[in-house]
This record gives sequence, C-alpha cells and structure tokens, in this order.
Amino acid sequence: MDNFTFQNTTKIIFGKGSENNVGQEVSKYSKKILLHYGGGTIKKTGLYDRVVTSLKDAGVDFIELGGVKPNPRLSLVQEGIKICRENSIGFILAIGGGSVIDSSKAISIGSLYSGDVWDFYLGKSEITAALPIGTILTIPAAGSESSTGSVITNEDGFYKRAVNSELIYPKFSILNPELAFTLPKYQVACGSADIMAHLMERYFTNSEHVELMDRLIEATLKTVINNVTQVLDKPDNYDAWAEIMWSGTVAHNNLLNTGRVGDWGSHDIEHELSGIYDVAHGAGLAVIFPAWMKYVYKHDINRFAQFAVRVFNVENSFWSPEKTAIEGIKRLENFFKSLGLPTNLKELGIIDDRLDEMASKATNSDLSTVGNFIKLGKSDVYSILKLAK
Amino acid sequence: MDNFTFQNTTKIIFGKGSENNVGQEVSKYSKKILLHYGGGTIKKTGLYDRVVTSLKDAGVDFIELGGVKPNPRLSLVQEGIKICRENSIGFILAIGGGSVIDSSKAISIGSLYSGDVWDFYLGKSEITAALPIGTILTIPAAGSESSTGSVITNEDGFYKRAVNSELIYPKFSILNPELAFTLPKYQVACGSADIMAHLMERYFTNSEHVELMDRLIEATLKTVINNVTQVLDKPDNYDAWAEIMWSGTVAHNNLLNTGRVGDWGSHDIEHELSGIYDVAHGAGLAVIFPAWMKYVYKHDINRFAQFAVRVFNVENSFWSPEKTAIEGIKRLENFFKSLGLPTNLKELGIIDDRLDEMASKATNSDLSTVGNFIKLGKSDVYSILKLAK
Repeated sequence: MDNFTFQNTTKIIFGKGSENNVGQEVSKYSKKILLHYGGGTIKKTGLYDRVVTSLKDAGVDFIELGGVKPNPRLSLVQEGIKICRENSIGFILAIGGGSVIDSSKAISIGSLYSGDVWDFYLGKSEITAALPIGTILTIPAAGSESSTGSVITNEDGFYKRAVNSELIYPKFSILNPELAFTLPKYQVACGSADIMAHLMERYFTNSEHVELMDRLIEATLKTVINNVTQVLDKPDNYDAWAEIMWSGTVAHNNLLNTGRVGDWGSHDIEHELSGIYDVAHGAGLAVIFPAWMKYVYKHDINRFAQFAVRVFNVENSFWSPEKTAIEGIKRLENFFKSLGLPTNLKELGIIDDRLDEMASKATNSDLSTVGNFIKLGKSDVYSILKLAK
Repeated sequence: MDNFTFQNTTKIIFGKGSENNVGQEVSKYSKKILLHYGGGTIKKTGLYDRVVTSLKDAGVDFIELGGVKPNPRLSLVQEGIKICRENSIGFILAIGGGSVIDSSKAISIGSLYSGDVWDFYLGKSEITAALPIGTILTIPAAGSESSTGSVITNEDGFYKRAVNSELIYPKFSILNPELAFTLPKYQVACGSADIMAHLMERYFTNSEHVELMDRLIEATLKTVINNVTQVLDKPDNYDAWAEIMWSGTVAHNNLLNTGRVGDWGSHDIEHELSGIYDVAHGAGLAVIFPAWMKYVYKHDINRFAQFAVRVFNVENSFWSPEKTAIEGIKRLENFFKSLGLPTNLKELGIIDDRLDEMASKATNSDLSTVGNFIKLGKSDVYSILKLAK
C-alpha cells in the first residue's frame, strides 16, 4: 500500500425529496448565487420550480445560466465567470449531471483568478481559490458531485482537458434517486459504463498489497452490475437507482484510490474521442476500456484473473490464469453490449480516418504518455484504437 | 435504502513515517496544545521523542497529560479539562488507541462547556462546541480516529457511556502501520475483534435494499480476517498491518452505515462487562457477539446466511438457509478462538453472579431496550449473557 493523504469534505444529503431543503443549505454560504444547469429538462420535470421555491424561502437571490452541453464547453464557462464577477456571486448551485457540475467547478475557479481559466486546464497555473459550489445530481455517472475533478472541452481545437484540486470538492451534494427516473435508457447505460470505468481505472494498478481497496472496488462494481439492468427494466425502481447513485459517488470520491496509483489511460484516450467526435463519455469508455484491457492484460495476468473471478464470477482456470483473464474481458464486453452500448468505434459512428490524429492528441504528439498500469506512447494508443475499430 | 446525511471531514495521513510532520499539521490550529497519551509505551518506542521534535520544530508549545487507561476514566478527563481551561489550550493531540482518543474528545467538549462534561454522556446536554483535536494512532481497533463517538467510564458506579457528535471528528489522524508492530498479541486480537464488531453491528440491520453497503462491509470484514493472522505470525508485516489499520478506520468512519440502521446491542451489552469487570472491549465483544447472534438469527435467517456465505465462504445449504446461518456463527466463533480470544464469560474471568446486574444496567432497569435489529429488554439481555456463560 502506498503512502497517501485522504480527505473528502463534501456533505452528502441522500434520499427522497432531499432537494427540497436546498435553499437552507445554500444560505449557509451566500445569499447571491449562480444557478447553473443544462438543456432545460429540469424545467419540464418540475425540479427547477422546487429549487426556486426553496431558494426564495431561504431568501437566496439567484442569476441563472442554463445551456450546459455534454462535454461542457469553455465558452459557456467564460460566460459564467463574467456573470459571477459582475454580480459578486458568492456561491454556485449546479443542477444536473457531471457536465453541469464540471462547468460549475470551472466557473468557480475562474471567477477568482485574474488570468484565463483555461490556464488551469493546461497546467500553466495552480488553483489557489474557488467559489464554493453545491450540487443537485440528476445523472449518476461522472462522480463529480464529490470529486476533485473537472473536465472541460475547449471548442478552439476541441481539446478536452481536466483539472484536479481539493478546493473544488462541492460543499454539499444532494442525491435523490427519484431524479434519475426520467433518464433515457441510453444515458442510463452510458452513466453506468462511466461509473464502472472509474472503478476499473482505480482497480488496474501496479501498487502492491492493496487488498482492502481491491475488495471495495469489486463490491461497488458488482453492485452497479446487479442494479443497472433493474433500472433499465423498470426506470422508477427507486431501490436500484439508490444503489447506482450512491455507487457512482463512492466510485469517484477518492476513497477507492487510497494507497494505490490508478491507470486513467482509457479516460485520456476517450477524452480525444469525445473531444473530436462529441460522443457520450460513457459510450466512448465502453468502446475503449475493453480494447485497452486486451492490449495490456499480459502485464499482470493475475490481476485480470482476480477481476474476472471476483467481479464477473468467472470460474478460475487454475492451469491457465490467462484463460480466466480473457474470459473476464469478454464478460465485460458482453455486459456493455447487453446494456445497448457500442463496443467498437464503428458502432460509435467513428470511422478510422482520424485514429492517428487522436493518438497524437492524446499523447501530445508523442511527447508524453498516458496511463500508469503501462505507460502508453502514441503508437500504443494507435494500436488500442485499432483494436477498438 | 434509508435517507441519510453523510459527511466525514477528518484528514487521513497514512503511511510510513507519517508522524514526523505532525508539528506542521498541529500548528495550523494552535501553538499551545495538550499532548494526551496512555501508559508511556510511546516513550519506550521513541514515538514520543519524534513527536516532541516535530512540535518544537513547528514552534508548538505543549502541556502533557499521560495515564489514560483502557476504558478511559472520567476523572482523568476532568483533569484534562482543568488543564485546558487554565492554560488556554487551543488543540489536543491524542497519541494512542481508542481510549486516548476518546478521552481527548471528552476533554475537547468539556473544556468549552460550563457544566459537568458527564452531562453529555447522560444525554442531559447537547454538544455545541469542541476544541479541535488530532490523533496519532497506535492501535488499530476503535476507529475513533475518524469517528463521531467517544466512550468514557465513570468510576462512580462504573458506568460506561457514549456520546456522538460531528463536532468531535478529529481534524486529522496520522496512521502509520509501523506503530502497531510492538502491540502484544492479545491486544492485536482484541483490536481485530473490535473492528469486526463495528462492521457486524452495521451489517445486521432491518433496512432493506442496502446492497452496496452490505458488499462494502463484507469486503472490509474479509480483509481484516485475511490479515490479522498474518500480523499475529509476523508482527512487523507492514503490508498486513496497513490493511488492518485502514480497515479499522473505514469500518467506523460512518460511510458503512449510510442508508441503514445498525444494531449496536452487542456494544451496549459489552459496555457493562467492561464497565463492571474492566475487561478489554474487544475480548468482551468476542464473547458477546456470537451469543447475540445465536439469540437473534431467526429474525432474519437470509441475512445471516448471506453473512456466512460471503464473509466466511460457507457453502450455502439451499434447502436449509438456517444451517448456513448457524455455520456462519460457528465460523466466527472459531475464528475468534483461533486468535486466542475468549469465547465465553468464564474464559473472560467472569462468573455469573452479576449477570442480572449487568442486564439491568444495560437496559436502565428495564426502562429501555438495547439494539435495533431486535429491541432487547432486560430479560433478553440476561438470556444473551446466559448464552455467553
């Protein structure tokens, strides 16, 4: 187990109707806030009205900024920063999924920075201050509701880049599984693939003696696998949604990577897919992750065999752990397929004419590598994309 | 899954040599602190000197108060409160196990309260303020290093009582598995039984649809079971100690009871054993928990069967879940025995002449009940103590 520091300060408020006290929570931080959301679904479902009522009851004034798109854009972030500065906003409330939350985090760090917020995403500047934010989660997937990360897409060149800082842990996150009932099936599947990918990125590590975290990750993966088919069958299955929603947070709140170094190569490669082709992040991961596994599993067959046995109940081949390992990858692929997710680039609508460009972008033209389990250069990424065709 | 709120703010600093920066951490809160510890082992091992050096380097002044005993006493707490008040102490650093940490928490709430600190433990007053505390953990067991609880024994009548408040989460806890190398074998076994009991108290619940937490608890139990025998064989096995130490914190940091109501009957009953006979808490739990299980398992045979299969790898009897359930209890008992722990009151050195008194004290003379899985009155507690004879 590697040495580590762990602290997650986000307050989780979980359960039925939990959004109805949001005004009270917000008013602990500021009476003048930015309300940030996506395409307006929250207005159709009545969530918007409930939030506004609660804010008004608590005497909280707000300015709204909707329009966050999947793979949230830098231009809207800039608009949000301008609003926050001009109106002395003291708090940002994000209502939505990972895109809205990530956009809010970007606004929160940009508002208190004199330079261009994109500097942070390029690693040119370090985050030293952030407006407090809170979230009402509507899509279990990204885990951003209790994470240190934010991923933004710069339309100028379609670069998708991430920052990490403990300063952007949300102060609170409201998780009501009922809010996920209206999600389209494809989005449910994408969200689950994203949660599973967060767990698997942490799982495939070279750190040794990491039994507790291995087991906790396996436990969370099994829970997601068991429950996602239930909500696809019955979208208003509260109990199953509760398992998925809480799993999505636990998967990405930094507990499950304590004492180990995760991989994150598949995420970096997928970011180029989403950046260039604007595909759903979860769908991209469902394609990239199995391809990555096929490319790297020989690096640690035992770990892949353990994954197969403990997560997908593969019967262990004692005389051929490799057979066990390969069967585990197959099961994962079949599971994604059973959710209606694409399992190759073609199904994702991507033809192969820009694979080289993607591999190049992911690795900054071969100047750097992605991933930790094995460090992947441009030609490795290209091979993985070929495997994913 | 029940509605819940969860927030744990303790910063965990984990790994080899992690105590060497304690001065820096402390100085964020105060330059004048109380150094609280137990019987002086920390002076023999050199830990005390390392801490003092780090405090001095950081310009932190300290007053010390040693002498905390297992089942920490109210009288020493009162002494600590007096010191804190007279010297305007701004922070308490606990070096030790659960007893030292619980004693520190009691001092921290008592120092800022005009009345008698025991009021809190009697439920007569509510905690509204606490001095910040930090810990250097030397005994993985109680989980107090990242919990909201404190358990103190009032020598006047030997009452052992608990408080809970988010205000007493330690600000930071330093967990260096090396510090556990010198623990006597019996204490190692007691500590592991305590960790397992914290997990099992949470596991046996009437809350439904709690799959994620069930699986996370099982994962943590399996990790403790796999590693405690390793450290008993080889006390300086860092990797195995790391698993146990981090498991002990995860077991009791409130994550694993999200969305469910734990039982805690065995803890309440054991508190009377420790209160009257001053036995080690973990040893008492090793005796009480299996007896409690035998008394209550019929209330939910499926849950006990799941426990048996998933934690102790019992082969499921599909035609008799009860057989599976009973086998699980047996395996737990045998496991405790294999660690050198007592499994009945006699082995604990307790004859049965005061069972009635204990049952009476645990339930406040039958005015109240203990436990949630089944609410146990005085006669139930008496029966469980009889089963434990």
